Amino acid sequence: MDVQRITVLGAGSWGTAFAKVLADAGRDVTVWARRAEVAGEIRDGHSNSGYLPGVTLPENLSATADAAEALSGAHAVVLAVPSQSLRANLSGWRALLPEDAILVSLAKGVELGTLKRMSEVVSEVGGRPQEEIVVVSGPNLAREIAAEQPAAAVLACADHERAVAVQRASSNPYFRPYTNTDVVGCELGGACKNVIALSCGMAAGMGYGANTMATLITRGLAEMARLGVKLGADPLTFAGLAGVGDLVATCSSPLSRNRTFGERLGRGETVAEAQRAAGGQVAEGVMSCTSIRALAQSHGVDMPLTDAMHRVCHEGGDPRRIGAELLGRQQKHEWS
Amino acid sequence: MDVQRITVLGAGSWGTAFAKVLADAGRDVTVWARRAEVAGEIRDGHSNSGYLPGVTLPENLSATADAAEALSGAHAVVLAVPSQSLRANLSGWRALLPEDAILVSLAKGVELGTLKRMSEVVSEVGGRPQEEIVVVSGPNLAREIAAEQPAAAVLACADHERAVAVQRASSNPYFRPYTNTDVVGCELGGACKNVIALSCGMAAGMGYGANTMATLITRGLAEMARLGVKLGADPLTFAGLAGVGDLVATCSSPLSRNRTFGERLGRGETVAEAQRAAGGQVAEGVMSCTSIRALAQSHGVDMPLTDAMHRVCHEGGDPRRIGAELLGRQQKHEWS
Repeated sequence: MDVQRITVLGAGSWGTAFAKVLADAGRDVTVWARRAEVAGEIRDGHSNSGYLPGVTLPENLSATADAAEALSGAHAVVLAVPSQSLRANLSGWRALLPEDAILVSLAKGVELGTLKRMSEVVSEVGGRPQEEIVVVSGPNLAREIAAEQPAAAVLACADHERAVAVQRASSNPYFRPYTNTDVVGCELGGACKNVIALSCGMAAGMGYGANTMATLITRGLAEMARLGVKLGADPLTFAGLAGVGDLVATCSSPLSRNRTFGERLGRGETVAEAQRAAGGQVAEGVMSCTSIRALAQSHGVDMPLTDAMHRVCHEGGDPRRIGAELLGRQQKHEWS
Repeated sequence: MDVQRITVLGAGSWGTAFAKVLADAGRDVTVWARRAEVAGEIRDGHSNSGYLPGVTLPENLSATADAAEALSGAHAVVLAVPSQSLRANLSGWRALLPEDAILVSLAKGVELGTLKRMSEVVSEVGGRPQEEIVVVSGPNLAREIAAEQPAAAVLACADHERAVAVQRASSNPYFRPYTNTDVVGCELGGACKNVIALSCGMAAGMGYGANTMATLITRGLAEMARLGVKLGADPLTFAGLAGVGDLVATCSSPLSRNRTFGERLGRGETVAEAQRAAGGQVAEGVMSCTSIRALAQSHGVDMPLTDAMHRVCHEGGDPRRIGAELLGRQQKHEWS
């Protein structure tokens, strides 16, 4: 499979950074941006100052606000829009997708209402078999990758050849993608980690240090693995880049929006106040905790941390009281 | 098993903090300190300003520089000396150990030369069956625990009853210990994490961010699990508090000596320069990388990160060149 011409739909920080990765791997890349001025800045100014300030984008990276123009002749199409708007966006693009293009999802979340993973939404709306959708995950904070710091990633697809084609198209001196066939595990890791990052931010906002963060990461990893295994994922995936790796990067970096949002809640702000401070956006984890909790409940899986975040974000729960509750659970063996 | 009177041998930061944990759990605790002035400060001033500045120690925590006095009548003896001097210290104390006392090890490392784990050294020198030694591990940065921040820990012992006795003796409102029977896994996690923390510090010193740190943590976890499984550990242990938990806390906190030492190496200092800056001490990981590497080699286990740290610390290797080498390994499947 030859993947030379690639379209990235979405010009947020990760979409733009991944477009740069592909361009730096020698591909011809076109970014679609919703706003014409953002497309213009990327195309003519080689920058996206709103999302990646200070970063110079490569010459072989173009941009347009016209989806038909962006998608024409693409060998691969990368979906880089927020998870809860992926269905609506993709519905509008469906007729424009070149028939043989590999569809690649950067979105991390579980859809509210349907409780579907992003590759399921892409398959359903894009009219492709689920086995053909490629998912990108791993410890990939966009700004660090845009700064060309060395990073590893996972490309998951049931069809190994498609994963390898995207691997070849994205490998460059600072970006090192590994292939994996466990799409379910990689996607759940990516979705769940935003909720755990919220909790780590919350603990930091309350003044707690690295022990507490490490404990939340460990217990969060255990609960996402429980859900994953129930849904057919390989438990090893959670010990890898799309599990521990993504989780640690998101939870420990001040660049993570979920962590920052949680910090505000931990300092006593309400969700509405934290949302105003974040320019009107809620963090992905605030929405995902609802859909992941529902998915876990529908499969009889216990996820105490996700449940706690739901109580804080959507039921007016007090972070301090809920933190004390989590710590006060009965003494037991680590895995019972 | 009634564990009311407990002796902690060693008044460094973790020994003193763990003594406080036990005292705050209502136990009668005596700390042995090598230097009489440190013992005096703990006993009379309720502080150990050299190791835990700003912390007030509880009234039911006493101290002495006389090992015989410290050990008399102890139901449990906690060994809190550096791993490479544990054998020599314990040899001197052996005749003073009360016959029925539970021996608890806080030391994390693999002995140079013998390549033994700390519980093996304690068993051999202390004259007790290996199955009876209790090991403490987990995300336990001493200063945070001394500040009474909530933390979880693991108490590992092949004899579950002994672990439960120490669990009861150490549980308090901010310290939440879980029991585990996998002593090999818990000890290897604790030893290996210092080497990975060195590498994370080194990356930070070279200016790399959270993606690189998360990648090092993930690949480090994979190599310590490979070694552990070969030596009979339960792979689940590495996904828990004594694996991921301890690793994340040590690698991400500026309080970690191994991380700080690595940062100096990453900024271009030599081992000797970093050692001078650390008051003459080398970080535990600088010694452990040699013994862990030898242990891995003797069992035919590949540990590229540990090997890289050995080259930097003991063979004059350049961190930048070695980092690029680690990143440049061949493209492959994540678990191949």
